[in-house]
Amino acid sequence: MARLVECVPNFSEGRDASVVGKIADAVSSSKGVILLGSEMDGDHNRSVLTFVGTPDEVADAAFEACRRAAELIDMNRHSGQHPRIGATDVIPLIPLQGVTMEECVALSISLARRIADELEIPTYLYEKSASREDRRSLSSIRKGEYEGLKESIQTEERRPDFGKPELHPTAGATVVGARPVLVAYNVYLGTEDVSLAKRIARKIRERDGGMPGVKALGFFIEKRKEAQVSMNLTDLSMTTPLAVFTRVVREAEAEGVSVTGSEIVGMVPVSAISEAAEDRLGLIEFDRSQIMEGRLLDALMSREME
Amino acid sequence: MARLVECVPNFSEGRDASVVGKIADAVSSSKGVILLGSEMDGDHNRSVLTFVGTPDEVADAAFEACRRAAELIDMNRHSGQHPRIGATDVIPLIPLQGVTMEECVALSISLARRIADELEIPTYLYEKSASREDRRSLSSIRKGEYEGLKESIQTEERRPDFGKPELHPTAGATVVGARPVLVAYNVYLGTEDVSLAKRIARKIRERDGGMPGVKALGFFIEKRKEAQVSMNLTDLSMTTPLAVFTRVVREAEAEGVSVTGSEIVGMVPVSAISEAAEDRLGLIEFDRSQIMEGRLLDALMSREME
Repeated sequence: MARLVECVPNFSEGRDASVVGKIADAVSSSKGVILLGSEMDGDHNRSVLTFVGTPDEVADAAFEACRRAAELIDMNRHSGQHPRIGATDVIPLIPLQGVTMEECVALSISLARRIADELEIPTYLYEKSASREDRRSLSSIRKGEYEGLKESIQTEERRPDFGKPELHPTAGATVVGARPVLVAYNVYLGTEDVSLAKRIARKIRERDGGMPGVKALGFFIEKRKEAQVSMNLTDLSMTTPLAVFTRVVREAEAEGVSVTGSEIVGMVPVSAISEAAEDRLGLIEFDRSQIMEGRLLDALMSREME
Repeated sequence: MARLVECVPNFSEGRDASVVGKIADAVSSSKGVILLGSEMDGDHNRSVLTFVGTPDEVADAAFEACRRAAELIDMNRHSGQHPRIGATDVIPLIPLQGVTMEECVALSISLARRIADELEIPTYLYEKSASREDRRSLSSIRKGEYEGLKESIQTEERRPDFGKPELHPTAGATVVGARPVLVAYNVYLGTEDVSLAKRIARKIRERDGGMPGVKALGFFIEKRKEAQVSMNLTDLSMTTPLAVFTRVVREAEAEGVSVTGSEIVGMVPVSAISEAAEDRLGLIEFDRSQIMEGRLLDALMSREME
């Protein structure tokens, strides 16, 4: 099985397509990585690249993109709604398959060190790579944004993990870290009673003692006229869509309400889909390497690396 | 979505790894195709390559492999248990995604014509590409094998679809055709009564008026001490694993027997898995392009084609 890491770096340019194109080129011309998407947001004046590849090659491509962004973006002239501290604002590394979170953390640390050493951009580690508990969340690292951090970076509290306590004159600072793949998953209840969705959300979410890796809220969805348990699954190795679906069904039925369906928003790894299929068909001895597309992908990735 | 065709040609050499390696090289050095596997069988003195790629490139790679086999294999010196008529014995083309059966039939016809024209190997069309009803099955085309066909090829009944009615002096003749992807799928019954498995097989198989694209037999499986409905699903666009599973459950329950599980033997396209997952989770508006591996595969295939 090919070892795959996903990277979704955010850059502080969302209006000039030629700049974003040049940063994307730095990724797409890298060996061993595949650029899956490039999105610009004019209001946020921010863009996101999505690419996947083998671990070292993903880190190299992220470094090259960061170098290019530092050449092309001047934070002194940047404005936009979204909080940010640098030209390359944040570089999340996500283990997709055959790679542990620990390996991704190590990868993010060496990438952060390299950006500080070679590009002279101070870097912060966040999420699973955070060096301090108060740096796990992006929002705490971004406090004061580029403008405020110019001064506060010199304080002990805001000192970067790598590099001098001084913003790069045009590129600011960059946040790097490993985080799990995240699946956005919603379950609909056959009721308009949003309070039931909220009660179930509270029961199942991790922070209130529920299922590991589950963030959950209850909403009323106008379009379907139904209550919805809206979730982010942040650790598929612990809690899968099938596991939360089963639990929500049980909690809803205990209150006499049925589940009417569920939805996956955005991308999902095939393993999360496969589990539900295995359950539905009572599959015996099914190995996910039997899925043709996965085998093809592995063959293509190993050719890509030759 | 990348347009993908699978090709699993059979060659009449299963003992000399250097010969099989050279034929495999003709495939792996082709642009736009990925060699997934190469298997040799000494008793059958036969080998099978499995490769996947975009339609025209798959046909080109199959042609090159056929040319190489004609240079390296002498049918006058071939013996083995498996019936065969040529150095490249049969070239099945299978639509995997984004390609219709009609397109695969057209592809197989032009490949068969090219092999006859350029390599002077007479070719027969079989399965979905067959020009006559009696040539749908391989066994009827292989009747008499290489040795017998030397004479009988001159008769009207055995005249090839392309090329002169005369075997290639060393490479014999080749069968080419399009056939659907095939999933081997078994459902286990909670009984030792094989007669129930046989009755259900008869009810669901196409040839007895059952479900389209289903071949089915009933067996007793010693290992599990259970009766098994053993199936080949030859048209997933008509009948999926979930559809037959549901039907077998219904037929078994009507006789008071439960289904204990099922198994997929070998490869399966992700779409067949996805359907069961969508059913299990009641997924709303799920699009299979949301499956990350599929999207990666598409991106890699389009890069492969650049």
